[in-house]
Amino acid sequence: MLVQLTENVLRVLNLPIVSILFLLVVVWIAGELSKRIGLPPVLGELVAGLIIGPPILNMVTYTEGLDILAKLGMFFLMFYAGLETDPKKLFKVSRSAIFIGILGTVVPFALGMVVVIGLGGTFLQGLFIGAAISGTSMVTKSRILYDLKILKKRIGYTIMGSAMVDNMLSFIILSVAIKSVIIGEFTLFEGIITLAETSVFFLVSIFIGYKLYPRITKYMRQTTRGFTFAIIVGLFFAFFAEIMRIHFVIGAYLAGLMVSEEIA
Amino acid sequence: MLVQLTENVLRVLNLPIVSILFLLVVVWIAGELSKRIGLPPVLGELVAGLIIGPPILNMVTYTEGLDILAKLGMFFLMFYAGLETDPKKLFKVSRSAIFIGILGTVVPFALGMVVVIGLGGTFLQGLFIGAAISGTSMVTKSRILYDLKILKKRIGYTIMGSAMVDNMLSFIILSVAIKSVIIGEFTLFEGIITLAETSVFFLVSIFIGYKLYPRITKYMRQTTRGFTFAIIVGLFFAFFAEIMRIHFVIGAYLAGLMVSEEIA
Repeated sequence: MLVQLTENVLRVLNLPIVSILFLLVVVWIAGELSKRIGLPPVLGELVAGLIIGPPILNMVTYTEGLDILAKLGMFFLMFYAGLETDPKKLFKVSRSAIFIGILGTVVPFALGMVVVIGLGGTFLQGLFIGAAISGTSMVTKSRILYDLKILKKRIGYTIMGSAMVDNMLSFIILSVAIKSVIIGEFTLFEGIITLAETSVFFLVSIFIGYKLYPRITKYMRQTTRGFTFAIIVGLFFAFFAEIMRIHFVIGAYLAGLMVSEEIA
Repeated sequence: MLVQLTENVLRVLNLPIVSILFLLVVVWIAGELSKRIGLPPVLGELVAGLIIGPPILNMVTYTEGLDILAKLGMFFLMFYAGLETDPKKLFKVSRSAIFIGILGTVVPFALGMVVVIGLGGTFLQGLFIGAAISGTSMVTKSRILYDLKILKKRIGYTIMGSAMVDNMLSFIILSVAIKSVIIGEFTLFEGIITLAETSVFFLVSIFIGYKLYPRITKYMRQTTRGFTFAIIVGLFFAFFAEIMRIHFVIGAYLAGLMVSEEIA
């Protein structure tokens, strides 16, 4: 019986549900410790991830299952951030958000390029390093703003709005850099195409969100299963964003905005 | 640009998030249709799963990602069913639940054996068919009872309680059957071991749930992150059940019971 039990323990330890349990316990303890010493929980959680993940201890490695859970986690965080955001208030801060977003992309990008080229790198190397450091994480930002309880304050709206602009610009720069490497020389053409794709994504999203979606939900409201439908809409926009070569979290955030408009 | 777009569409269609979107849309439509013609939504959802899954169209096949999502879905359904269950009311119906559970296992098991052996099958073949048809799905039951809004009625408690007994007995029969095939002859010893494991699982669970857990939560209540902790407790019991060779959904259900006791 003991042999049987040992065999079974070994089998169970390899189940994906066990790595989820292990991750949750570690992250939860790290978040609590972080809070005790007066830091935001997300900081402890990130550090814990670095420690148990591939960079240091390599206790939890990439699996298809964990990857899909991580992506769904990002999706729900961004969808929730969108739900919690009042589109009108976001629109109100759009001017400063665009200004901060451009500045927050261009300054690190330019500094990165200057330093890399100054240290003897090529133009393309400068382009890559610049693009890499000019981006920002909307997902981490939304979580930190939520933890600090300022996601729905004016500062929160400005940060999220500028992060969206920053993301888009960095993405355009990065796609230009990648295409340039593939072709072998700097190409402005790719930049224009990416800009066009991004614009189409936003125009179509706004059209669906403010013209089509309200009509569908008016019909839908008679049924009770609005929650599943909202998730479907969110996943559809995440999917659409990926099709237009934009990161899916932006689609999830926009979908959250639309659904919250409808609920309010 | 069109070539690029087509390439990208093909890339995106292979993303796991797209199969989730596809599954959700199909299941949602099937559930709605089922409701329109007066049937429980879960029926349409199950039929849709059969049609698009491996048995018929094979449009969605097994992947590690979908498997983990399915397991988590079962986990949350059962954990939620446990949360919604009042342990005292469950205890009140325990006598009839045990009676129905035993009858609901023994009758199909015996009939299955008699028919198989009557048709010329061996004793072991009869054991397997009998075990296979004597089990029941607690997960599907909890979902149907929830949809019918009788999960928290007396009949709901009796059905869930007897399903738990049924599950356990069928599991013991099945493990005897499997061990008998491995050894080559019928073994009562395996049945006794399995019964012992199941008893240990329940005794330890009840001890943790009613002695240890209330003390931990009394300490925990000072912090705010009770939700994550509740999920951790649920996953731990699911894990513990698997270690004791019981299906993890029973652990999830018991954990839900304990957590609801604590919340109430």
